[in-house]
Amino acid sequence: MASCAPLVVHLLLLVLCYIYCICSGHLHPLDALSPSEISTIQSIIKSSSHLSPNPFGFHYVGLDEPDKHAVLTWQSDPSFHPLPPRRAFVILRANGQTHELKIDLDNNSIASHRQHSAKSGYPMLNVEEQVAVLALPFKYAPFLESVNKRGLALRDVVCGTFAIGWFGEKQDKRLVKMQCFVTGETVNLYMRPIEGITIVADMEAVEIVEYEDRVVIPVPAAAGTEYRASRQLPPYGPRGKPVVVTQPEEKGFNFEGNVVRWANWNFHVGFDSRVGLVISLAGVNNGKDDIHRSVLYRGYLSELFVPYMDPSEEWYFKTYFDIGEYGFGPYSSSLKAGIDCPHNAEYMDGYYANGAGSPVLLRNVICIFERYAGDISWRHTEIAIPGRIITESREEVSLVVRTVANSGNYDYVFDWEFKTSGSIKLSAGLTGTLEVRATDYTNAQQMIGDQHGTLVAPNTIGVFHDHFATYHLDLDVDGPENSFVKANLRTVRAEGCTTPRKSYWTVVSETAKTEADARIAHNEGPPSELLFVNPGVKTRLGNAVGYRLIRSGAAATALMSEEDYPQKRADYTKKGLWVTPYHKSEKWPSGVYVDMSHGEDNLAVWSMRNRSIENTDIVVWYTIGVHHVPSQEDFPLMPMLNMGFELRPYNFFRAQSRDRDSTVWQTLG
Amino acid sequence: MASCAPLVVHLLLLVLCYIYCICSGHLHPLDALSPSEISTIQSIIKSSSHLSPNPFGFHYVGLDEPDKHAVLTWQSDPSFHPLPPRRAFVILRANGQTHELKIDLDNNSIASHRQHSAKSGYPMLNVEEQVAVLALPFKYAPFLESVNKRGLALRDVVCGTFAIGWFGEKQDKRLVKMQCFVTGETVNLYMRPIEGITIVADMEAVEIVEYEDRVVIPVPAAAGTEYRASRQLPPYGPRGKPVVVTQPEEKGFNFEGNVVRWANWNFHVGFDSRVGLVISLAGVNNGKDDIHRSVLYRGYLSELFVPYMDPSEEWYFKTYFDIGEYGFGPYSSSLKAGIDCPHNAEYMDGYYANGAGSPVLLRNVICIFERYAGDISWRHTEIAIPGRIITESREEVSLVVRTVANSGNYDYVFDWEFKTSGSIKLSAGLTGTLEVRATDYTNAQQMIGDQHGTLVAPNTIGVFHDHFATYHLDLDVDGPENSFVKANLRTVRAEGCTTPRKSYWTVVSETAKTEADARIAHNEGPPSELLFVNPGVKTRLGNAVGYRLIRSGAAATALMSEEDYPQKRADYTKKGLWVTPYHKSEKWPSGVYVDMSHGEDNLAVWSMRNRSIENTDIVVWYTIGVHHVPSQEDFPLMPMLNMGFELRPYNFFRAQSRDRDSTVWQTLG
Repeated sequence: MASCAPLVVHLLLLVLCYIYCICSGHLHPLDALSPSEISTIQSIIKSSSHLSPNPFGFHYVGLDEPDKHAVLTWQSDPSFHPLPPRRAFVILRANGQTHELKIDLDNNSIASHRQHSAKSGYPMLNVEEQVAVLALPFKYAPFLESVNKRGLALRDVVCGTFAIGWFGEKQDKRLVKMQCFVTGETVNLYMRPIEGITIVADMEAVEIVEYEDRVVIPVPAAAGTEYRASRQLPPYGPRGKPVVVTQPEEKGFNFEGNVVRWANWNFHVGFDSRVGLVISLAGVNNGKDDIHRSVLYRGYLSELFVPYMDPSEEWYFKTYFDIGEYGFGPYSSSLKAGIDCPHNAEYMDGYYANGAGSPVLLRNVICIFERYAGDISWRHTEIAIPGRIITESREEVSLVVRTVANSGNYDYVFDWEFKTSGSIKLSAGLTGTLEVRATDYTNAQQMIGDQHGTLVAPNTIGVFHDHFATYHLDLDVDGPENSFVKANLRTVRAEGCTTPRKSYWTVVSETAKTEADARIAHNEGPPSELLFVNPGVKTRLGNAVGYRLIRSGAAATALMSEEDYPQKRADYTKKGLWVTPYHKSEKWPSGVYVDMSHGEDNLAVWSMRNRSIENTDIVVWYTIGVHHVPSQEDFPLMPMLNMGFELRPYNFFRAQSRDRDSTVWQTLG
Repeated sequence: MASCAPLVVHLLLLVLCYIYCICSGHLHPLDALSPSEISTIQSIIKSSSHLSPNPFGFHYVGLDEPDKHAVLTWQSDPSFHPLPPRRAFVILRANGQTHELKIDLDNNSIASHRQHSAKSGYPMLNVEEQVAVLALPFKYAPFLESVNKRGLALRDVVCGTFAIGWFGEKQDKRLVKMQCFVTGETVNLYMRPIEGITIVADMEAVEIVEYEDRVVIPVPAAAGTEYRASRQLPPYGPRGKPVVVTQPEEKGFNFEGNVVRWANWNFHVGFDSRVGLVISLAGVNNGKDDIHRSVLYRGYLSELFVPYMDPSEEWYFKTYFDIGEYGFGPYSSSLKAGIDCPHNAEYMDGYYANGAGSPVLLRNVICIFERYAGDISWRHTEIAIPGRIITESREEVSLVVRTVANSGNYDYVFDWEFKTSGSIKLSAGLTGTLEVRATDYTNAQQMIGDQHGTLVAPNTIGVFHDHFATYHLDLDVDGPENSFVKANLRTVRAEGCTTPRKSYWTVVSETAKTEADARIAHNEGPPSELLFVNPGVKTRLGNAVGYRLIRSGAAATALMSEEDYPQKRADYTKKGLWVTPYHKSEKWPSGVYVDMSHGEDNLAVWSMRNRSIENTDIVVWYTIGVHHVPSQEDFPLMPMLNMGFELRPYNFFRAQSRDRDSTVWQTLG
């Protein structure tokens, strides 16, 4: 289309577009909201008469994603097509109600405003309201008595908020539970829980509405809980000899705004206050012709469900949705150069709107670096040709985009690794400290009955739990219209055939017609390849282009019973894979309003419509997870445990080579 | 005991021992045979009257492992205890028989000599006899006619030997099949098979005993098969910006003979002409007190089973035991500095005895380096303490020992990665070229019926197959007496209990009594932790010390039917895990004599005795694997595909910390 426009019009539009982009402060329709945009949103809302004059709190301020079609049209020729309308999506609490607003940032106005009317669920807790309720116990006489009764110094006590969940009760208040810990001689407060106390606060009224001090259990000692390197011996103490990564020439990637270009890859890096890092419009160039071939429209970690397995009074509710209840944005760590990321990394900042709607800078929350681990990308030694030994080998250099989210005690390291082979490896690393329960026991041999965990230190039980990380992957393999193909490996009996073999396996592929065909539990059914193909694009060899999802070992499936309340809220974790048709509003598998939700609005519910998913724009939801049985090594700080999976091209790249004497690609496939 | 000996005696023994060690050329009882030892063995055998005067060939010359007890005694105080007797194990073919000899290297004599009398199985093919039979087709008129008939130039033809397997037939000759390929315009001969011909040679008589030219199929074109970097475009062509690993101070590891010491780890590196790299006596130091705590007595990749799934005349037998039939030693690649291993690597050579019994140097077949991939070892950010933000983070530097084996078309990269956290990560990376079948088809849409593979290039089918890598892991967790504990995760219904929860999971552990209890197929049964514990050693907290085997995603189980011949020979691949009591002779899961074997002597057969494995010296056999459905990306060279698993401490390390004002370890656990 662009090539048909007269050149002068094209150039004029290019200039106008560029001026527009510069003035509006964003160059890409998927750019995260800038701090000035967040401030503008704050002003628009504060000056609006739509809202009550009562105080209100901001719970989510993020980009209202433009229509996908508009983004793809823009991307096809950014110099010709205008940027799609720029809008923000805002969730507020005001007057005891949840409000959803869309803000038109092109015209600085409220485009829409409605009250959330579903039966259950509240928005993410914001930081400021948590800080407000966390001050309550320190002025609450029964708590002061509890602290006193345990012989603790109040100045050493620190409390945290814990989402209350939902367990069948009718509840019209927005509540949160609190648990308190002792610091004192250590900064590792999570190893020193004050057990036996239940504190429930009303988030809106900012008051304690329920308090019970049921049982006194000794607070575990501070000794041995230290994790700061300066206080540690090997292996956690003094470092070994340094190993340094350098790039003697220059870095191999560059930025154009928030678009990263490296080797054959390009993609957009965004940041959202709910999910943190977002990768968009990832594609690879097809050799010399430099044609962008899409792979992934938008991908991010969409939920992290962490249910604990202790049914006791002070623990049963600990079934966290780290993203839906708290959001990753405010808890994204500022990455330390040379440690959290290697010395050759570049960094990006992020912003979120605080409870008052003001922009907050998160410095260096994303790092990008070229990774060389000493690995080999491909190699071959050929000794079969008489008189010759041929060895060809290439070191593996990849590009990593990393973010770290700090969910209270745990620290999660999320990497997106792009390889020149076309693979994307996603990994979630788990470190930080355990969530432990104080106990009278000091030796495992004393323990009677099910204690729901491992004794990891004296008086300290590391409680059994799971980590389920669900990725939202809007794959667009060579375009939006894709299908999911389950390529099952089936044993064929060869009896009666003209072969000395009695069996072999072959591939019997099934294309999923509807959502039900694509709900697959890990380790269920025959071994299979999970393929995402574009049935409309074939290689010259006639194979449909595709990507393969290579399963990880971290393939835990939820073990709670299906009718259990936390499981209902996260019933999508009973399956490892879901495929849905693209729907703009289906962004978060646990629903928009997760806090205290009843599970009425989530991936499993949407999927019950059993929509068609064949040869259409589909979204893949893939959950990796581990059942975490703590060991003593996880105390006082947990060495990294990695989970991950790979998206690997499957007949996506045509077999290509170069004619010996030219630079022209021969597309053989 | 050592401390009871008078000091003078102790010192004298130390000096004598040292002199002895230096003179004998080895300092460690598990050192691989030196080139001079191999030459000595050759002389002893050649001058022996035990053997016939007829020519004979060497098929295995390796260390006859000393008694484990003797090695452990020696290790407990090498200056006090003498080295165990030094012996070699030799397998010869002479006079149409297989001979097993033990050579006493302390006295330069034959300690024992017996003929192998089992019903089936021959030793590994040696290189020289393969070279001899590979010359046969070029003087064999029917083959010359076949080449001519296909319009091929004989000078472009290269042949390879392919183990013939066993398919129920009675056979008293030692046979091998050959397949030939065309090089010509390419060095990627494996992409240009000459299809339709069966050639069977007698290895002993060195003659072709069967020949059939069944069908002519076009040889795929050379164009597009090139894998040499100098002939490639990105991503396989010009490199990106270099990323260089440097160590500005010095390396963090050192050698004492073949013992490597790094951080808290020490282990012995050996090399064997059958299995290649062997890691022995791996242990960690327990903090400041520097006490060696054993983890692994001996570990190595013990077999690599690669069955293809094409039952046709020229393909049905392709069911390779890469280690048992060929051995990894002679095919271990000389590693290229800066590419196969990073610039900060150190290298070790290996030796094997050729068919004549002479030592052959394999330069740089093992590399060792400190790995820094930009990863994080552990971290935590703490924001809960008012007014403070604490971030502690440590970069992950590990030690890698690597070897690369070149099994014809495939190249396997085997890494042992040691972490300061006590983990050992084992990985097997798969690259090189596919084994393809020539076909008339040039487009996937033409293909009719089951073609047993993917069209990866015109006239080229990448045939379905598996890779099963079986590790022999003689774990000695804090000593030889270990047990295998399967810690099953079981859902508990909470109905009727005093909790709002309806369910949770807990751990129900079963200690395996006998071998049958420990045969576990991947993905079989409830989720579980695979623990290897020392029931006799508890932490101060009362937990049995142990290691955990963390499963990998590459957990394929054999799909051939149980009565199929190749599957009978590799029936151990039906289970992912086997645990056996330590038995010195049980080194190779496919048996000693694998070529043409009937499966009478292998891991599954040994395990049928159902021996006790509780609280005794046990050996773990763990198989990782993939079902390989090729894609176009695997042509002409396959990007690395990684499989792996982790051995991770489980209550092995006591929770340790340092008192703030001292350097004394507090053992809390």
